[in-house]
Amino acid sequence: MADRVFEELDEYQCLTLIPPTGVGRIAYLSRFGPAVLPINYTVHRGAVVFRTGEHGPLDEDLGTAVAGGEGSLALEIDEVSAGARDGWSVLIHGPARRLTPGEEEDTLRYTRVEPWAPGERELFIRIVPARITGRRVSPRSA
Amino acid sequence: MADRVFEELDEYQCLTLIPPTGVGRIAYLSRFGPAVLPINYTVHRGAVVFRTGEHGPLDEDLGTAVAGGEGSLALEIDEVSAGARDGWSVLIHGPARRLTPGEEEDTLRYTRVEPWAPGERELFIRIVPARITGRRVSPRSA
Repeated sequence: MADRVFEELDEYQCLTLIPPTGVGRIAYLSRFGPAVLPINYTVHRGAVVFRTGEHGPLDEDLGTAVAGGEGSLALEIDEVSAGARDGWSVLIHGPARRLTPGEEEDTLRYTRVEPWAPGERELFIRIVPARITGRRVSPRSA
Repeated sequence: MADRVFEELDEYQCLTLIPPTGVGRIAYLSRFGPAVLPINYTVHRGAVVFRTGEHGPLDEDLGTAVAGGEGSLALEIDEVSAGARDGWSVLIHGPARRLTPGEEEDTLRYTRVEPWAPGERELFIRIVPARITGRRVSPRSA
């Protein structure tokens, strides 16, 4: 018998687990296949906002994925223990778009969302969660 | 001027940074769009091996992505500082396939690769790196 228990999380449990600010991983389809990048996100006005510098093909493809509309990218947030034997993982899908300059200012005024990878040309991206799924792995109680 | 420096990493730098065993995030295209899941990986005989339980549509889609052949999934490994202002991220693309039962035994004999999410039906997956890219963000020296 496995010594750990797998559990699917509902949307409410997922929202409770996600810290208001933290590190997430953004996934999208690049020209080389699926791509993942770490980003700093913040929850602001019911949406998830992140910011990243533009540096190469991967970042260009991220911009293209955002322009591609709903379903073209996903944000994953997790917390996995040091031994990596338990923890939780939440996956957020939803329409994503670039912030307008006014919204960028507004976001910066009310939150601190720093780019993990700074760059001259920055992308501010907002995802409105439409589908939130999650999973948790815990030690089995005796 | 930004207080941090962005740098692209070459394949050698990437291979030096990746720990031989650790937590990575696997990305693939699911029926809901891109999906990401944390996994425990191990480097074994020049390839990256991971193991995960099968639980729902996401895991089924991972199996389908593997069957889809090269370019259908990617593994990301990173180390981001607590303040999430610096660190590195490596992205591995390459042909992926399920291990045969003999290879599973062999992998288990020589390495410890534990599934992050255990399950009755487990997938053992092997990715042979074909394209390795990476990025690092460091504090700018004075």
